[in-house]
Amino acid sequence: MRHPDRTTWTDWLAAQAATRDAAGLRRTLRPRPAADDTVDLAGNDYLGLSRDPIVTAAAADAALMWGAGAGASRLVTGSLRLHEQLESELAGYLGQPAALVFSTGYHANLAIVSALADRDTLVVSDAHIHASLVDAVRLSRAELVVVPHSDVTAVSAALAGSDKRAIVLAESVYSVLGDEAPLTDLAAVAAEHDALLVVDEAHGLGVHGAGLVHAHGLAGVPHVVVTATLSKALGSQGGAVLGSPKLIDHLVNRARPFIFDTGLAPAAAGGALAALGILREHPELPDLVRRRVLDLAAALGVEPPAGAVLSVPMPSPQVAVAAQAEALAHGLRVGCFRPPSVPDGVSRLRITVNAGISDDDWARATEVLVAVVKEHG
Amino acid sequence: MRHPDRTTWTDWLAAQAATRDAAGLRRTLRPRPAADDTVDLAGNDYLGLSRDPIVTAAAADAALMWGAGAGASRLVTGSLRLHEQLESELAGYLGQPAALVFSTGYHANLAIVSALADRDTLVVSDAHIHASLVDAVRLSRAELVVVPHSDVTAVSAALAGSDKRAIVLAESVYSVLGDEAPLTDLAAVAAEHDALLVVDEAHGLGVHGAGLVHAHGLAGVPHVVVTATLSKALGSQGGAVLGSPKLIDHLVNRARPFIFDTGLAPAAAGGALAALGILREHPELPDLVRRRVLDLAAALGVEPPAGAVLSVPMPSPQVAVAAQAEALAHGLRVGCFRPPSVPDGVSRLRITVNAGISDDDWARATEVLVAVVKEHG
Ligand SMILES: Cc1ncc(COP(=O)(O)O)c(C=O)c1O
Ligand SMILES: Cc1ncc(COP(=O)(O)O)c(C=O)c1O
Repeated sequence: MRHPDRTTWTDWLAAQAATRDAAGLRRTLRPRPAADDTVDLAGNDYLGLSRDPIVTAAAADAALMWGAGAGASRLVTGSLRLHEQLESELAGYLGQPAALVFSTGYHANLAIVSALADRDTLVVSDAHIHASLVDAVRLSRAELVVVPHSDVTAVSAALAGSDKRAIVLAESVYSVLGDEAPLTDLAAVAAEHDALLVVDEAHGLGVHGAGLVHAHGLAGVPHVVVTATLSKALGSQGGAVLGSPKLIDHLVNRARPFIFDTGLAPAAAGGALAALGILREHPELPDLVRRRVLDLAAALGVEPPAGAVLSVPMPSPQVAVAAQAEALAHGLRVGCFRPPSVPDGVSRLRITVNAGISDDDWARATEVLVAVVKEHG
Repeated sequence: MRHPDRTTWTDWLAAQAATRDAAGLRRTLRPRPAADDTVDLAGNDYLGLSRDPIVTAAAADAALMWGAGAGASRLVTGSLRLHEQLESELAGYLGQPAALVFSTGYHANLAIVSALADRDTLVVSDAHIHASLVDAVRLSRAELVVVPHSDVTAVSAALAGSDKRAIVLAESVYSVLGDEAPLTDLAAVAAEHDALLVVDEAHGLGVHGAGLVHAHGLAGVPHVVVTATLSKALGSQGGAVLGSPKLIDHLVNRARPFIFDTGLAPAAAGGALAALGILREHPELPDLVRRRVLDLAAALGVEPPAGAVLSVPMPSPQVAVAAQAEALAHGLRVGCFRPPSVPDGVSRLRITVNAGISDDDWARATEVLVAVVKEHG
């Protein structure tokens, strides 16, 4: 009965693996221990809060008090007063009228686009947008126009060419190259065309205090919606959408990645809430990140990025991997981005700056990185 | 510059809200306190493990030891030995060669389908499949054939009609009606056509020990892949895909909801691991759930479901809401499913059985439910 032309899954998986191996692009997981001597310059725990004793204690207390899981969808019995408190404090800190918390940042991005957009919607997306927003647009079945990176004129032209309801997608700080979106101009162009501007603050929140939307005076502006993750500067897990109460109400009623998903685990909500409290009280943490970013960019001879992600171009995927291995041999974990994770095909070392590292470790890390980049860059 | 025919977002959101209100379908969040006098017969914490002191202590310890978050994608520095241990114990318990853990069950479902299927793939999906799998197919852009609920002949016909690589989607226990998939027949039909069978064990794992794939002797069969959530019977948060090492390797390399997402928070991984340990050592927990399901189904005069979800049809969405409110007035939280969350448009009370409830509370709950269903059913 088997169709003679059908490829078997075994053959297909083997062929896919062979293609990856031939291209030198095989990825493997390297689980790490709870503590070792290496310095992490690859993760997104920008303020070092995931290991902060106040944050971990708050996460632990939340698990003990509320349970290990929320137990159900937020719409059934999985909404906790803890979620509500986190939503209210997130909204307050970011200067937004309301917030809704999701179980990942990925879910938040899937939700905002897929609950608003359909075939009658135009989505104008920056070319460097994160995978979660790309997937979100695909889920929504909206008409998609991808514009060149940070090209406001192209955004304006795309909006002018359609009478559909329209959404513009940007990241405040782009995740791979670490550069900043032209938020003020994007917001102006969106307003002119009655479009909604969705800004993903995954790499802006915390690194820039309340984020770049807030810094540019755009927080609470009705046509500017913010998404955020709790898993980077807030050191935990989860995501959020911030905007008007009417928008949040719409998401509660219509966003499938919210409705059909178990609520965020109490420990993650409690940890993020404590991290937010520390961030509010310690503006010197973002300042320290900023100082370290500027110093390291100068030492490596690269443009200082807008966020905490330094991107150092490498001549090939293989050289990038070799440079990463050498840094590790000197006790530093740095990231290495290769196709297809890079928007322009250029392999890179990706170094993230982290306020949780001691001054001594930081000085040593800078020395090692300068040597490694000199040799391979 | 604004296009004269463009609907504004404010008008669109208001119109959407008005439509919901007119249909009596408005959903609102009702955050609950950490402890109150009500009995939860709506959540999916089937074995009561989310509040088990061993599980909450393990979640708390994991946060203290590993941090409040994983800090990065699993492919960067966010893979912990704790994830590895959870993967190995999940695979062992479910009788599978390998496992990969995700930050939600939703992510696990998005990942397995979107990493395997593309335009050259046929997906044959049961009509009652969960939203996360529906979204997964849409993301993949595969050709989709939706077959009538649990109709194996229709699955076979759909497979025979195409020479594309093919995937069949089922849930071991369906989430809304609580009925069981014809797994043995589905696996046979899939084998005959070289298709892959993906079985979502979200509501089977724990309620049926190691799940129904295992119970039917299908665990480890190469063309049967399992997805699971850590957020229901395991009382925590997260998801997993279980299958061959080659399949897992493919997901690590290609599944966007894995690659571009922060690793599962340590507390959630630690909590799920402890819950799995309890489940292994206490087969009487699934037995208790099963006994309560049979007793309650008999008392309410409905067919006993395969899992722990009892579905009681109601004459209208409004009556369903009224019955739910009356149960709450008597201290019971039960679920209420209304369109668009039900596959066939019939509103229902959705009652989930939970081994964590005391015998006294259980007896009282049964009495209240019998009275409420008699009055409204
Ligand atoms: C720009 C951006 N948005 C969203 C996400 C997803 O957030 P989360 O890891 O919380 O799912 C990430 C990375 O993980 C990201 O870099
Ligand atoms: C059948 C089924 N699959 C997957 C999921 C998603 O799992 P999670 O809540 O862990 O994202 C759910 C419900 O939440 C479900 O009912």
